[in-house]
Amino acid sequence: MSTPLSPLAPTDVPDMPVISGVKLATAAAGIRYQGRTDVLLAIMDKGTTVAGVFTQSKCPSAPVEWCRAKLSSGKSSKGGFARALVVNSGNANAFTGKTGRQATTLTASIAAKALGCSPDEVFLASTGVIGEPLDATKFNGVLGTLAENAAPGEWMDAAKAIMTTDTFPKVATATVKLGKAKVIISGMAKGAGMIAPDMATMLSFVFTDAPIAPAVLQSLLKQGVADTFNAVTIDGDTSTSDTLLAFATGAAGARGVAKITRLSDPRLPPFRKAFDAVLANLAEQVARDGEGARKLVEIIVEGAVSKPSARKIALSIANSPLVKTAIAGEDANWGRVVMAVGKAGERADRDRLSIWFSGIRVAHKGERDPAYDEAAVSAAMKKPEITLKVALGLGRGRDRVLTCDLTKEYVAINGDYRS
Amino acid sequence: MSTPLSPLAPTDVPDMPVISGVKLATAAAGIRYQGRTDVLLAIMDKGTTVAGVFTQSKCPSAPVEWCRAKLSSGKSSKGGFARALVVNSGNANAFTGKTGRQATTLTASIAAKALGCSPDEVFLASTGVIGEPLDATKFNGVLGTLAENAAPGEWMDAAKAIMTTDTFPKVATATVKLGKAKVIISGMAKGAGMIAPDMATMLSFVFTDAPIAPAVLQSLLKQGVADTFNAVTIDGDTSTSDTLLAFATGAAGARGVAKITRLSDPRLPPFRKAFDAVLANLAEQVARDGEGARKLVEIIVEGAVSKPSARKIALSIANSPLVKTAIAGEDANWGRVVMAVGKAGERADRDRLSIWFSGIRVAHKGERDPAYDEAAVSAAMKKPEITLKVALGLGRGRDRVLTCDLTKEYVAINGDYRS
Repeated sequence: MSTPLSPLAPTDVPDMPVISGVKLATAAAGIRYQGRTDVLLAIMDKGTTVAGVFTQSKCPSAPVEWCRAKLSSGKSSKGGFARALVVNSGNANAFTGKTGRQATTLTASIAAKALGCSPDEVFLASTGVIGEPLDATKFNGVLGTLAENAAPGEWMDAAKAIMTTDTFPKVATATVKLGKAKVIISGMAKGAGMIAPDMATMLSFVFTDAPIAPAVLQSLLKQGVADTFNAVTIDGDTSTSDTLLAFATGAAGARGVAKITRLSDPRLPPFRKAFDAVLANLAEQVARDGEGARKLVEIIVEGAVSKPSARKIALSIANSPLVKTAIAGEDANWGRVVMAVGKAGERADRDRLSIWFSGIRVAHKGERDPAYDEAAVSAAMKKPEITLKVALGLGRGRDRVLTCDLTKEYVAINGDYRS
Repeated sequence: MSTPLSPLAPTDVPDMPVISGVKLATAAAGIRYQGRTDVLLAIMDKGTTVAGVFTQSKCPSAPVEWCRAKLSSGKSSKGGFARALVVNSGNANAFTGKTGRQATTLTASIAAKALGCSPDEVFLASTGVIGEPLDATKFNGVLGTLAENAAPGEWMDAAKAIMTTDTFPKVATATVKLGKAKVIISGMAKGAGMIAPDMATMLSFVFTDAPIAPAVLQSLLKQGVADTFNAVTIDGDTSTSDTLLAFATGAAGARGVAKITRLSDPRLPPFRKAFDAVLANLAEQVARDGEGARKLVEIIVEGAVSKPSARKIALSIANSPLVKTAIAGEDANWGRVVMAVGKAGERADRDRLSIWFSGIRVAHKGERDPAYDEAAVSAAMKKPEITLKVALGLGRGRDRVLTCDLTKEYVAINGDYRS
């Protein structure tokens, strides 16, 4: 918690407007941290729909299993609806066996009692240490008080309560016309480490007052993560807890906005664009707050045989410790980029490869670019934002991922995290 | 080059006996380093057979392509035979395009002239910086002098000449009976970083005086690497240059040892055992000299659904930055081990998982082991060698890989390597 603010933190923090139908409250329940909040309760109006994407880990946390079960029961007439979200930081409630399942049941039942809803309408997320039992009795009383105090618009407080090794709270918002009325999309995220794209990559919660049927919301979310959260990698590690939930309160319905029930709804494209922009903004903030990060690195791969092939190569570069340490050392070591292209296992022809660092071509058709100016590249490498482009010269497949450098601070943060 | 000796360096250095039919010589050709040797010439007697395994990188170095071509022409009557090996450190001759191919041709032709053999009998390996042209004219004269000065038994000098960021030279030897006569198997390796098992994982050269037909030698080598070099990972990165060559001079033939021409030869099993032991010894030394390594980590996965599944899970653990930094921090953070099991994508049941650190069970059937003694584990984690065992409880698949921790020194070494 004493880590200094990431040098890549955004300088502008958006004004976060109130979203009708959502109230937020936070508290310090003393789960692990001292002197800070560690519980978030979000209360949603009746009729709020919910969608979620989760870690692909074969050993997911108890809250991930809880949410998955509630969402899949959502295929019945009753589900796909949410009244509350309870998030705690400090303990991930992962690899905690039966105790973990009991903790989720107890948390949901405490929240349900406080709000007068069904536990099936309570969604849960936990982040922090893995393998330690979570004492859910600590939520007793706390959630009741939170339910009384919850207020619209406390976004920054909410984003702070869910932080672990994050150095800044992450929020984003967009306003967009849905038909003739304006609707709002706002979200928060926490990330920092154990971030690899194999789903929704960390905790993130997005809210809108638009009225959207659960199946449409799920489809929006699933498509939206592909080029946002799933295109961010910090260390290639995949959390047991990664959770992205979207809630649509439908409060804009009171302003005459008809519910979106089909993906073919002509009002959807601009909404999707704004929704994706919020996800992209949050995902970029996660990369900007990668543990120990000093450089934000955008990796663009083009000329691959397909987009999935470009993605795989981009991730191979983004997750290479040798590429990441070179960037930390401000060294435009394109040889290591070639190495990472080569190990991806995807089609690549060394003699067609070209590589750019921040717009300067350093390698062309399999050799050092004859016009390569070391001084210009060195200057570019000193900047906090680096773009690394690889052109394969094989086809039209293109993709982009975000990552950060690998620094001694990453090692320090993760060598001491638990002790 | 100024990196201090790895604390994991072996304390015993074996006496390296002379192998009949092999002469070695080293020189300082000034390819990149100052004040040290950077070229090795090994000269083999006529009739020496050769086998090789190489990086699986799609962007291999020019010397890898050279060796592959010579070995595949070896399927004809002329090939599979070697008279010389030229290795340089300081420059990998990788991603150097046409210039790189010209450099290999020139190097082989200089060596062939010096030795009076065909360039097709000259094998090459280069290690060091990628993407910089290798000036092979520097070998002019140098290889001639080396050919004159080459002597049997200069193993340590040879192992030193091929080092890059290695902190100690790596040699290993074994003597074994082949039928009634004793034969010797000796080898050297260099490793340190960019080590991931996707073939032969670094430069290593193994020599024997046993008479072995090329096809049998190739089969021995291919099988031998699977549980040795291919079971070592430092950082998950795969070099463009990984090369393991085996040379059999057949000099023992003069002592009445008949050539091994079939895999079913009854003399082969003990030889194979000794051969594999030399590979395993060298591979372990590579892990012991992982860049910045302070801990040697043996990862054992058992109870998986198959051996390949166990290997995949073991590598997922071994390559996880979060597991590796925890071990650097002497933290028995088994939660991160669960994470790494979960992200491997292989079958795993969280509620059957058990985890041991250096023989102490810390997790059992999906929960913290009730008898888990933090003090005992802490003491074990302070030692330089750590064993991490995971039992999945699903089947009989078992595997083992070696790795090391991820330290700030790794970042320092790789953030400054080129500049």
